[in-house]
Amino acid sequence: MRAVDLIQRKRDGGELSREEIAFLIAGYAAGDIPDYQAAAFAMAVFFRGMGGAEIVALTEAMMRTGELLDLSELPGPKADKHSTGGVGDKTSLVLAPLAAACGVYVPMISGRGLGHTGGTLDKLEAIPGFNVRLSLADLRQVLRLCGLGLIGQTPEIAPADRKLYALRDVTATVESLPLISASIMSKKMAEGIDALVLDVKCGDGAFLRTRDEARRLAETMIGIGRGMGRKVAALLTDMEQPLGRNVGNALEVAECVETLKGRGPNDLESLSVELAAWMVHLAGAKPTLDAARARVRQALASGEGLDRLRRVIELQGGDPRVCDDLSLLPQAREKVVLRAERDGRVVRLAARAIGHAGMLLGAGRETVSSAIDHSVGFVFHKKVGDPVAVGEPIVTVHAGAPDRREAALARLREAIVVGAEAPARGPLVLDVLG
Amino acid sequence: MRAVDLIQRKRDGGELSREEIAFLIAGYAAGDIPDYQAAAFAMAVFFRGMGGAEIVALTEAMMRTGELLDLSELPGPKADKHSTGGVGDKTSLVLAPLAAACGVYVPMISGRGLGHTGGTLDKLEAIPGFNVRLSLADLRQVLRLCGLGLIGQTPEIAPADRKLYALRDVTATVESLPLISASIMSKKMAEGIDALVLDVKCGDGAFLRTRDEARRLAETMIGIGRGMGRKVAALLTDMEQPLGRNVGNALEVAECVETLKGRGPNDLESLSVELAAWMVHLAGAKPTLDAARARVRQALASGEGLDRLRRVIELQGGDPRVCDDLSLLPQAREKVVLRAERDGRVVRLAARAIGHAGMLLGAGRETVSSAIDHSVGFVFHKKVGDPVAVGEPIVTVHAGAPDRREAALARLREAIVVGAEAPARGPLVLDVLG
Repeated sequence: MRAVDLIQRKRDGGELSREEIAFLIAGYAAGDIPDYQAAAFAMAVFFRGMGGAEIVALTEAMMRTGELLDLSELPGPKADKHSTGGVGDKTSLVLAPLAAACGVYVPMISGRGLGHTGGTLDKLEAIPGFNVRLSLADLRQVLRLCGLGLIGQTPEIAPADRKLYALRDVTATVESLPLISASIMSKKMAEGIDALVLDVKCGDGAFLRTRDEARRLAETMIGIGRGMGRKVAALLTDMEQPLGRNVGNALEVAECVETLKGRGPNDLESLSVELAAWMVHLAGAKPTLDAARARVRQALASGEGLDRLRRVIELQGGDPRVCDDLSLLPQAREKVVLRAERDGRVVRLAARAIGHAGMLLGAGRETVSSAIDHSVGFVFHKKVGDPVAVGEPIVTVHAGAPDRREAALARLREAIVVGAEAPARGPLVLDVLG
Repeated sequence: MRAVDLIQRKRDGGELSREEIAFLIAGYAAGDIPDYQAAAFAMAVFFRGMGGAEIVALTEAMMRTGELLDLSELPGPKADKHSTGGVGDKTSLVLAPLAAACGVYVPMISGRGLGHTGGTLDKLEAIPGFNVRLSLADLRQVLRLCGLGLIGQTPEIAPADRKLYALRDVTATVESLPLISASIMSKKMAEGIDALVLDVKCGDGAFLRTRDEARRLAETMIGIGRGMGRKVAALLTDMEQPLGRNVGNALEVAECVETLKGRGPNDLESLSVELAAWMVHLAGAKPTLDAARARVRQALASGEGLDRLRRVIELQGGDPRVCDDLSLLPQAREKVVLRAERDGRVVRLAARAIGHAGMLLGAGRETVSSAIDHSVGFVFHKKVGDPVAVGEPIVTVHAGAPDRREAALARLREAIVVGAEAPARGPLVLDVLG
């Protein structure tokens, strides 16, 4: 078998077998197939796409270049959630404790934020002492003790994906549905889970702008998961405005704690409960989605969810008292309030621009090596559709270094539109594929 | 400027500026742009193509990574011919001496054969002592003394092309019209010529099978040459059967000598004269094509062409007596005659299969590192359309190592079809673009 022949076949629209794809990926991971052949292959895939069986083979081949998390010893079903990313998207910190409280083990391996979107790891690291760099063995131990564990990518999980992703980033081959799907799923499928719920976001603040694109990605990932024998469902959710009221790492942790106390914003609570219910149902812990929803709501109302969050923070080296005293989280130097300049309704809180403003403020990364300030961000007092009177606060900016403030505020102001009439408000969950 | 952004623009069907293409190519030649980005770029070009201005910019950028042959000191016009390659395609050794005899300097930089097609360098090296590895300075000296020089690629000419071609070969990006055209033309345009005649072959034995493909390649190369201020014309010529009667390196040299003595086969003589006449005319040595044809025919009839061949052989270290005694060329160990098995006419001499048979016999290379046997090959006694009687010789095989014989003969037999009726014979020159 020669790599060049396989590249040519894909280039000409042909299909590759499971063995051929495994040859390419294992060879690439081992360094036998050079970067330039992988780059040509990725570009050919960009243009020609891949069939369902090819995508499953690609995912499995990437997964098999690394370790698989073996959770068979844990006495219960295992599930996870993956979000394609958005602004203020913090459901993981709410739903993982809730699902764990419902008897589902949640081995969550997350990423960092980049560009306008945040990442779960950055939020966790806003909690003083929280260690996201556990080994897989330590993760297993934390899972055994509290039902959930929240860590970052380890070098042992799907190393081919890490290598290929870095290559795609510099060869303009990122935006390929099969490659994106296989990248996400190769890591998730290595987690040893029975079920996966996908939160595929679409709209201004999402990676994918249109519902059609989001649906195609969701369908592709569902195909992979099922092709690998897992239960998978996807929720297509709206990402036109930030989810919840807080954007920024410590601020989002605070909002999650409040939500687990039953005091969170409606959109964040309802989406977190819905995603957790799908996890509980798909994993087999409840026979119907309705029963799962009821159980998750109970875990929220009873404080079981908050207890799980407290325990996982403690087990991973963090200060669990943040769950009782939010002032223990990093606090911004200064607060600046932006107020309405006219009466009316909030017409638009443009999620992407708000995410960029947060990045400019220091909450996010422009490049993978940028340092971030966990304390900074925004707290929105109004959401799209809310009435406002002139002079009323719309958003409080939690600001850090003065030199990062001006550009961020300018971007933020552009993102907020107040007008006479608000648009009709659509549902948060646009569709369910499952 | 970042390579990844340029790759992405090309990937998405956009156009690159002259400066952007120069950045990519110069950077690649210098090692600042890595192979993997060049591979992704080449694959994007494969799918998206390039506009005329982009192709000119690419050619020029590749040319400028190396030295340009400065022939301004030579007191006369300079021209060359390039053939896209075929079986028995040996016109260079006939037309270069003829054009030189007509007052046109011919600085011919050629390649080696690969696969079923032969290469001028291999033919030249069948002449005892002939040295194709002259420096550019030595080539200039030979040109000054006899009007033509016949050498191989030097490392100084368009090094980016050499590097990119090697990369394309292992990344399935060879078959791209812009990349093929720019590769050919970047080397030819470095020769310091005023005019270039292209022999674009099509049919079974050619790189391109159909006339449409050949026409597109011809038009692209003409566009490049004119974009760079040169006179260019292209002849589309038939390559269904071998050109002339001889296939194999020493055998083809012998046939060229015979042709320069006025005793060559019609097709080889007429095509060589036509191509030489175009060179002479385009270079400005004769005002009309007809006048150029007359002058070339005169150079052939008078023996001036043969004299030029004799002199260039001598100047490049070869034994010029081969022009008078063909037995000084390498002789095959043994001759095997294939005879007609029925009465009829020759319906087909399948050029590609004959080229492959020659390669199997040792006349050509399967890979760039294969050794070749200059003595072996075929002499066809019949061409397509000729009548044959049962038992009459069709081809004499000049065979070498016995272990290479059987497969070659089997392939050769398959290539020869004798039937009741021969197909209508088309013209050798299918079209002229000029």
